[in-house]
Amino acid sequence: MRGAVMYGLGDVRVEDRDDPRIVQPTDAVIRLSATCVCGSDLWPYRGLDTVSWPMPMGHEYVGIVQEVGSEVQHIRPGQFVVGSFFASDNTCEICQAGYQSSCVHREGVGEEGAQAELLRVPLADGTLVATPDVPADDLIPSFLAASDVLGTGWFGAVAAEVGPGKTVAVVGDGAVGLLAVLAAKQLGAEQIIAMSRHEPRQRLAREYGATDIVQERGEDGVAKIKELTGGLGAHSVVEAVGTQESMLQAIRATRPGGHVGYVGVAHGVELPGEELFFSHVHLHGGPAPVRRFLPELIELIWNRRIDPGKVFDLELPLEQAAAGYQAMDQRRAIKVLLHP
Amino acid sequence: MRGAVMYGLGDVRVEDRDDPRIVQPTDAVIRLSATCVCGSDLWPYRGLDTVSWPMPMGHEYVGIVQEVGSEVQHIRPGQFVVGSFFASDNTCEICQAGYQSSCVHREGVGEEGAQAELLRVPLADGTLVATPDVPADDLIPSFLAASDVLGTGWFGAVAAEVGPGKTVAVVGDGAVGLLAVLAAKQLGAEQIIAMSRHEPRQRLAREYGATDIVQERGEDGVAKIKELTGGLGAHSVVEAVGTQESMLQAIRATRPGGHVGYVGVAHGVELPGEELFFSHVHLHGGPAPVRRFLPELIELIWNRRIDPGKVFDLELPLEQAAAGYQAMDQRRAIKVLLHP
Repeated sequence: MRGAVMYGLGDVRVEDRDDPRIVQPTDAVIRLSATCVCGSDLWPYRGLDTVSWPMPMGHEYVGIVQEVGSEVQHIRPGQFVVGSFFASDNTCEICQAGYQSSCVHREGVGEEGAQAELLRVPLADGTLVATPDVPADDLIPSFLAASDVLGTGWFGAVAAEVGPGKTVAVVGDGAVGLLAVLAAKQLGAEQIIAMSRHEPRQRLAREYGATDIVQERGEDGVAKIKELTGGLGAHSVVEAVGTQESMLQAIRATRPGGHVGYVGVAHGVELPGEELFFSHVHLHGGPAPVRRFLPELIELIWNRRIDPGKVFDLELPLEQAAAGYQAMDQRRAIKVLLHP
Repeated sequence: MRGAVMYGLGDVRVEDRDDPRIVQPTDAVIRLSATCVCGSDLWPYRGLDTVSWPMPMGHEYVGIVQEVGSEVQHIRPGQFVVGSFFASDNTCEICQAGYQSSCVHREGVGEEGAQAELLRVPLADGTLVATPDVPADDLIPSFLAASDVLGTGWFGAVAAEVGPGKTVAVVGDGAVGLLAVLAAKQLGAEQIIAMSRHEPRQRLAREYGATDIVQERGEDGVAKIKELTGGLGAHSVVEAVGTQESMLQAIRATRPGGHVGYVGVAHGVELPGEELFFSHVHLHGGPAPVRRFLPELIELIWNRRIDPGKVFDLELPLEQAAAGYQAMDQRRAIKVLLHP
C-alpha cells in the first residue's frame, strides 16, 4: 500500500509500505475512506517534538472494515467505522468512567500510520464505532472530523463544563478550537467567544455559533474577555493550543469557580502553582476520550445536525501529503483531508 | 487589648495593641472567645513567605459580637459568630456561585491580627454566621475549627468530588488533612486513606473515619495508594500541604478521570503541563470558600454530629502564643488553641 512517512523536519514522503495485517485476534484492518493531517503532526514537522525518523504519520481515520481477528465479535467486514487515536477495551473501570484514552489496555493507533490506504486497529470491538450504514460521500469529512478534532473539541467543552446559560471562551482557532465552538453551541452555551485573528477562521467560528470574536492575545485578550463577561471572566474556557502562553491566557480568562478544559497537547508548559491556587479555577483536560462521545457524534452527523467536516478547507490525494503539511504549517489551510 | 505580633523568623510576641473599632459602616467588632495558630502562620515563621515585620498574626476566630456599623442589618451585638479569613459580601455573582473567598469585594480578615482579644471583621453581614445561641464552652473549639481548618478540609473534599462509593486519599496530616478525612467520611466515601507517619495523627485520622493509613511518601506513597485501589489510583485525592512534592504525590495517586482537591497554600509549586495533561485528572482548589459551608458545618457541630475541635491538642493562654508557635513548628502539637 501507499503511506506517508516523515523523514525529518519538514520532510514528508508518500511511499510503498507493507500492507498491515491482523496481528492480535482482537485487531481489525480497515481500508481508509479518508484520512487527514493533524495540528499535532506539525509538532515533529517543526522539530518541536523529539521523535525517531523515519516515522509513519497519521492517526485520524474512517473507512470500511476489511478483515477482523478471530476474537472480534461486534465489528464486521463491510461496516463503515470511525475510531480514534487510542485503542481501548471500553470495558475496564477507566473506560467505563469515560476515560477510554487512559484505558488500562490502551494502545496507540496509527503507530503504523493512518495517512495510508490501510490501517490496523487494535482492540477493534472497544475502539471502533460503526455508522448505521455506509454513509454518503459528502458525510465522510464530518465522520473523519469525529475521529479526532471534533471529539477533542467536544471533550474540551465538556471538560470546561459548558452548558446552558454559560459564557464560553475558546483559545485557539485551529480545527479543535473551531469545533469546540460547535460543541459549545450544541451544549447550549449562551455566549461563545472565539479568539482568532484569521478572517476565514473567524467566519467559520461564527458559522459554528460564536457570538463574539476577540482578536487580542495574552493580557490584552484576557482583558477583552473580562470586558465581555461583566469583568469576571468566562464561566468556561477551552484551551486548544498547548503552549505556556495559551494555558495562562485560558486560566486568566476564567472567572473564580469557573472551568478550564484544556486539550492542546502541552508543550513546555509549567503552571505556576500559586497563581493557579488563587485563580480558583477548575482545570481538566488531556488526550480526549473521543470514544466516549463517538455514538452521540455519529448520530448528530448521520442526521446532519452538525457539519464539522467544514474544517477541511483543503482536500488532496494522499500522494500529495507533503503539500498538505506545508499548507497547514503555513496556516494556509485549517485542516487538510487526504484521499487514499 | 493584647495581641500577637510576629517580629521576625521564629519571633512571636504578645503585646498591647490599639483596640480595633468600626471603620466602615459594614464592619463588626467581635470579642474573641477563642483563636488559634494556623499551619499557614508557620510559613513566615520559618522564613518561607516574604512579609514585612512586624506583622499582627492570626485569621481564625469565633466570638461574641460587640459592636456593628450603621449598615449592618443581620448581625447583632451579643450573637456568637463564626467567620473566615476572607470577608465577602455574599451577594455578588462569584459569592452566589460559592466562591466567597474570591468575592469581588473580598477583604482579608485578620490583617489587624485575630490572635488577639478583639477583631474587626469587614462586610459583617456577608462574612459572619451566627450560631443558634451562645454555645456551650466545650463546643467552642469545634466552631473555631469551622473558621478555617474544617472549612478548608471540607472544601478540599468537595473539590476532590468525594462522594458515596468513592476511594479517597488525603495527602497531609495537619489539621486540614485530618479534617478532610472527617469531611470525606461525612460525604459518604467508601475508603479513606490517610497519609501520615505520626502515630497521634494516625489515631485521630482513624477516629475521623480513615480506613487505611499509608506511611510512605513520594513515589512509594503513590505505589501504596495504587496497591490499595486496584492499581488505578484513588477517585479523589485531597492535597493539604502545598509543596511541589505533595502536589505531585496527589496528582500521581489519582486515577485517570479522578479529582484532586488542593487546599495547601502553594509554595514554589510548578506543575509540569505534559504530565498533568496525560494524567487525565481534574484539578481544583485554592483558598477555601469557607463561608459556603459555614451554615452546614455550624449545624453539624451544634447538633454534635462531628467533633472537629479534637484537632486542638494543645490549649494555651493568648499570652503564651510564642510557645504555641513553637509546639506547632516542632510538630509537637497538631493545632494550638489560644484563650484570649
